[in-house]
Amino acid sequence: METIGVIGLGKMGKPIARHMLNAGYRVVVHNRSQGPVEELVAAGAARASTPREVASRCNVVITSLPDAPTVEAVCLGSNGIRDGATEGSILIDTSTNHPETSRRIASSLRECGIDALDAPVSGGEPGAIAGTLSIMVGGDEDAFQRATPILEKFGRTITYMGPPGSGQLTKLANQIIVALNYAAMGEGLVLGAKAGLDPEKLLRVFLGGQAQSRCLELKGEKVINGNYEPGGRLTLHIKDLQYALETAKSYGVPLLFTSLVQQCFEATKAAGRGDWDHSAVITLLEDLAGTKIRKR
Amino acid sequence: METIGVIGLGKMGKPIARHMLNAGYRVVVHNRSQGPVEELVAAGAARASTPREVASRCNVVITSLPDAPTVEAVCLGSNGIRDGATEGSILIDTSTNHPETSRRIASSLRECGIDALDAPVSGGEPGAIAGTLSIMVGGDEDAFQRATPILEKFGRTITYMGPPGSGQLTKLANQIIVALNYAAMGEGLVLGAKAGLDPEKLLRVFLGGQAQSRCLELKGEKVINGNYEPGGRLTLHIKDLQYALETAKSYGVPLLFTSLVQQCFEATKAAGRGDWDHSAVITLLEDLAGTKIRKR
Repeated sequence: METIGVIGLGKMGKPIARHMLNAGYRVVVHNRSQGPVEELVAAGAARASTPREVASRCNVVITSLPDAPTVEAVCLGSNGIRDGATEGSILIDTSTNHPETSRRIASSLRECGIDALDAPVSGGEPGAIAGTLSIMVGGDEDAFQRATPILEKFGRTITYMGPPGSGQLTKLANQIIVALNYAAMGEGLVLGAKAGLDPEKLLRVFLGGQAQSRCLELKGEKVINGNYEPGGRLTLHIKDLQYALETAKSYGVPLLFTSLVQQCFEATKAAGRGDWDHSAVITLLEDLAGTKIRKR
Repeated sequence: METIGVIGLGKMGKPIARHMLNAGYRVVVHNRSQGPVEELVAAGAARASTPREVASRCNVVITSLPDAPTVEAVCLGSNGIRDGATEGSILIDTSTNHPETSRRIASSLRECGIDALDAPVSGGEPGAIAGTLSIMVGGDEDAFQRATPILEKFGRTITYMGPPGSGQLTKLANQIIVALNYAAMGEGLVLGAKAGLDPEKLLRVFLGGQAQSRCLELKGEKVINGNYEPGGRLTLHIKDLQYALETAKSYGVPLLFTSLVQQCFEATKAAGRGDWDHSAVITLLEDLAGTKIRKR
């Protein structure tokens, strides 16, 4: 039985570590703040003081970190995974990372005989807790096959997308669509609300027809209640859109709508709502229109 | 039993007229071109040579017409519905019309004792044929109650939205969301395709997670096959977006994303694709990126 390391015990990493424990793996955890470490140690995990130590004690290391610089430091920095890992081990990075960074990490770890999979997830904290995440995987296909039994412990839809970076590219494309579907529902609801229509009736009509989207299903009722508790934080989605636009530029793909929605996400953050749910871009559209989409 | 008039026997009007016949109503039809009239006469309908004549022979008149000027001419012009209708009759306008025009028609017909409902539909030709359209209704609520048994013959989700114009406002908000959901899936798929990912795998991932939308379900596979057979024609959706932007302006609602998507719809039409499906805005995004989203 493998020993599994989990580095980064936030909203996603903590439930993933619990699934590893529940599946009967030996689990070694590391996190900057110690609260979640204590929780998992109480549940049976061992603690390690550096990513290097995690890697030296595990054949599989799962990372769940906020952004590309953090992932790169944890993987390739001093006292990082590269320094501790043994040949034949696997890194599974579930963070939403820059595809270029994922490729660099994969290539650097490959030289030490370590396989790196970029395996970003969709489904949020509820999906992580339920173990029903959608996982998009890039990297060596053999390594993907070896990692699949572990991925299946926290994911339901697991898709191999291609060489290193392909998982991240898929996630970024996904995040573009999610951001724009929020903007779409925002403009539809704001126009209707300002024109005096009942937002709950509007929502019902949209959900019953071609305007339906998962974003509308998950957030429509919350928007009408002015509830922007995160969920996925706006600042993290801004990071995703930044990576998407940089990546698109490198491929020669102009993204008119993504550029506009990124500016609107930035403006929403500038208005002090960076820690709200990412659907809070809709509050910017409300501000522009001088109205609120609210239950009658 | 009422006699039902149907004016405008296009993709939507013709199946609606058939549902009226199948439900056992006496049906009187009028259309500019005579082909669909002959079909319906063969199926048991009577023919009338003007909207006025239709109105004079029916207690309920259903219109299904391409744009606001046509609806206004048919309702209020010479030899129009107003000239022929008798007190107590009902107009059900299923066209996507300008809310302002719907209000003007309702107010003008009200003076003659005729109730006008704006009742635009969503669900396209397949929904019209199956009798499962979503119908959004504005107008007098009593008239809505009286018309409901007729609406139920071709609609499944029937929602009363409020005073005259409310049905149209709802439809325009719906069309904003649909247009932007196409743009969203277009940018996500174009980025992925140009970066070398398999569009079919991308589609599967999107549909399994938070990027899911009815637009992606209905059109994703077609886009990957380069199939832009209409469906709803692009030029008609441009008209809807124009009405949406004019209406938004009158309410003081700036619509950043809708403005951009309308410009992109216009550019797609300028490229000679006005008669393609409205999802063809995605071909413009392909052109901008110099790539095609195609099956491998």
